[in-house]
This record gives sequence, C-alpha cells and structure tokens, in this order.
Amino acid sequence: MTVALVGAGPGDPGLITVRGLELLRSCDAVVYDRLVAEELVDEAPEDALRICRDGLAQDVVDGLLVELGRELEVVRLKGGDPFVFGRGGEEALALREAGIEIEVVPGVSSVAAVPAAAGIPVTQRGVADRVTIATAHAADDSEPDYASLARTGGTLVLFMGLSRLEELARGLIAAGLPGSTPAAVISRGTLPDQATVEAQLEDLPARAADLPGPALVVVGDVVGLRGRIVREQEASAVAAKCTP
Amino acid sequence: MTVALVGAGPGDPGLITVRGLELLRSCDAVVYDRLVAEELVDEAPEDALRICRDGLAQDVVDGLLVELGRELEVVRLKGGDPFVFGRGGEEALALREAGIEIEVVPGVSSVAAVPAAAGIPVTQRGVADRVTIATAHAADDSEPDYASLARTGGTLVLFMGLSRLEELARGLIAAGLPGSTPAAVISRGTLPDQATVEAQLEDLPARAADLPGPALVVVGDVVGLRGRIVREQEASAVAAKCTP
Repeated sequence: MTVALVGAGPGDPGLITVRGLELLRSCDAVVYDRLVAEELVDEAPEDALRICRDGLAQDVVDGLLVELGRELEVVRLKGGDPFVFGRGGEEALALREAGIEIEVVPGVSSVAAVPAAAGIPVTQRGVADRVTIATAHAADDSEPDYASLARTGGTLVLFMGLSRLEELARGLIAAGLPGSTPAAVISRGTLPDQATVEAQLEDLPARAADLPGPALVVVGDVVGLRGRIVREQEASAVAAKCTP
Repeated sequence: MTVALVGAGPGDPGLITVRGLELLRSCDAVVYDRLVAEELVDEAPEDALRICRDGLAQDVVDGLLVELGRELEVVRLKGGDPFVFGRGGEEALALREAGIEIEVVPGVSSVAAVPAAAGIPVTQRGVADRVTIATAHAADDSEPDYASLARTGGTLVLFMGLSRLEELARGLIAAGLPGSTPAAVISRGTLPDQATVEAQLEDLPARAADLPGPALVVVGDVVGLRGRIVREQEASAVAAKCTP
C-alpha cells in the first residue's frame, strides 16, 4: 500500500496535475486540507474514505496517515505543493520511518501561480533574476529575519496572515527596503473571488489588511509589470472590488 | 482568439495540469520548448500546427505568437512554469501590447518538483523557512551576486548550466557559506533517467560536473533530509548510476 502526497495546486481545481487526479480517482482514502477545492475531493471514488484534516494537530495527521497507509491506497491531498511550506516533508519522514511506501506528486505552488493569476511574473529578465519565498510562520513563532529578507534582492513572495502585514512592511522598511518599493497582496488567488491590491510597500497595510485569506504578499519591481499584463478592464474590476 | 501560456511541468508528462491538457487537446497550434515531453506535444489534435521554438530567438518567438494568435487558438507550451525563469512574462507583454487575449496556466515548476523527486523538501519546519531561487543566466551575462545569495539563509535552488558549477561553489564559499554546506545536483529531474549527486558544497563540482542537463543545484540543510525520505534502495540505485 502507498501513501501519495499529492499537491492540489493553488485553488482552482483545474490546476491539479494529471497524475494527481489519476491517483485521487483510484484511491481508497483521501485525507485533505481545508483549503482544497471541494470539486477535487469529489473526484475520489464514491466509497472512498474522506477525512478533512482541519483541526487535527500535525502529529495526529502523521499518525493517521501511517495507520491508513498500512491497509489502504491513500491520497494525502495538500494545498499548493506538498514540499513548499506544505509540511509534506514531515509527513514523508513519518511515513518512511514507519516503513510505508510513499509517492510524492508535486503540485502547482501558490508561489508563482497566484502572482501569475494577478498578472505578475515573479521573475523577469532585466527586472528580477531571483525570487525568495518565505513564511512569517516560523517554527518557534519568532519574527522573520527582515534584515536578510531586505537584502536578498529580486522578488520577495511571502506566505502569511494579513494580520501581520503592518509588522512585515515596517520590518522590511526598517531593514532598508525603500517605502516606495512596488508591492501587492493577492487574496484567494486563482479562485473566482480573487482580489488584488497593488500599492507602495509603505501604503500596503492600510490598503490591504481587510482582504480575506488565504493571501500572498509580493514585494519587488515585478509588481510594476502587472498593469501591462492584466487587461485594463480586469485590473479596474479588481480595483473596484478591493477599494472600500 | 487566445494564446494560452501553459506550463508543461518539470519533465514527467503526468505533471501537466488538467487545465493545461484540456487546452492542448483543443488547440489549433502548439508552440513548444525543446525540453517539453514528446508525449505532451502528441496530445494536440492531429491537424494542429506544431512548432518547436528551438533555435528561434526570443523576439522571433514573441512575433510568431502574435501572428498565430490573431487567427488561431494557440497553446504556448513551456517547460516548468511560464513565469518562473520561463520568460513567459516577456511573451505575455508582447501579446498584450499587440492586443491579443492571453490565458496563463501555471505549471509545476522544477524549483520544488525536481528536489521533491530526489527526496528533498525545499522547506522544512525547523530546518529551512525560506527558499531563494536564482539563475546563473543573468540578462547581461554577469556573474550572480554570490554575496547576497550566501547571506539569504534558508535553501538555495539554482537553475544553471553545470559548466558553471565550479564557479558557483567557489563564489558561494568565498562569500561566506561553509564548504561543508550540504548540496546536491539533480540531473534530468522527474524523467526516467533522473540522477542525483549529493555532496558537501566544496566537493560538488568534482562529483557532479559530468551529469547531463538540464540540472538543478540545491544548497542547504534540507539536502540532509534526503537519505531519510528516499528509499535506501532507490538512493543506492541512484548513487550507482552517478558514480563513474
């Protein structure tokens, strides 16, 4: 029996991989994250066990996967990519230590897909030749190291709760990033109610703090390309949706 | 008419998205990168125009997409993700400036998928809470800024030709990364002949320079998780394949 760690992609159910969907359609059990599209969970066979992991601690999920994996073909359906801030590495280790076979099926990570859906390429020749992806949820709950984030150059993509947006902007500016650096928050990226707010870093918290999660923050000159890639009409529709 | 910029994923044809495959199966023309799997190009309708972009300069590709996009439903099938070192941003700008409708369908980027296929999660709670992705192919052919790369902390993932591996290792060590930092080269990731070499950064060039491309370099403590995630058998099979 095998436990497949499958990336469901950033939200839109069409962004799961062909291999991931194939495994999902033939599994005995699916253990899924709260943010995974319902349409995808519905793709599991009718008699498959369906378990939402919402509210379960990570070590309980690890133990559950081990128990299920001894007897069943299991799909662990995770938002985005299992190995990019998905804690898939922890699940893989727990399973391997218990002697359970695993298959890792990468997914489209929100990291690039969500900015893309807002018309922002995270890299662009002559604008940004590197991208740093970080989370504000450190294991020990400490603040991210803003000094090194501000120095990386290139594009910053931050997975974080919008409640910490004020702290983030302040931290990056204190560490040396100009307050005028182009920045954007993309809320519920790739979903039908996606919304984007684009502002200078110093103005971003006031403009974007009320957006619903999940959200991604993008900081860097690539944000300035957005107006040229997204259709004007779309851009203004989004702006209208976001401005109170 | 629309030009869809579709990410084909990192190599394995099963890693294209469901939406990407759907567009490919109904297009009038497909313009594809050399490294895209043949099985995917074969999914286009029998009477669709098939154009490999190999050997065409980027501005010629941009112009070709504009011309095709005026009359046909076009899929521009790109390796990995169109907006992560895929120059998809340039193509999107050229198309929008010419008034052509575009759709961007993100793909599974090699950035996380290729390390995952080698058993390396690019982030792991308590090990690495950030990842920086960079290329050694700067627009102006200059060297990457090793000093800031060495200071970013977390995992480094580098897209680059293996001919520059020696220079990369030397540059990062001179900029302050310990020579003993765990590192790996993954050659032809997710393809049947994938091969991985794991070594300390200072030993990597001597051990890995002869691997065939495309290749990805991963530097950081997450590389050390590999032995615990990949099955021993696999790991030794891979090692046998890589050691001359």
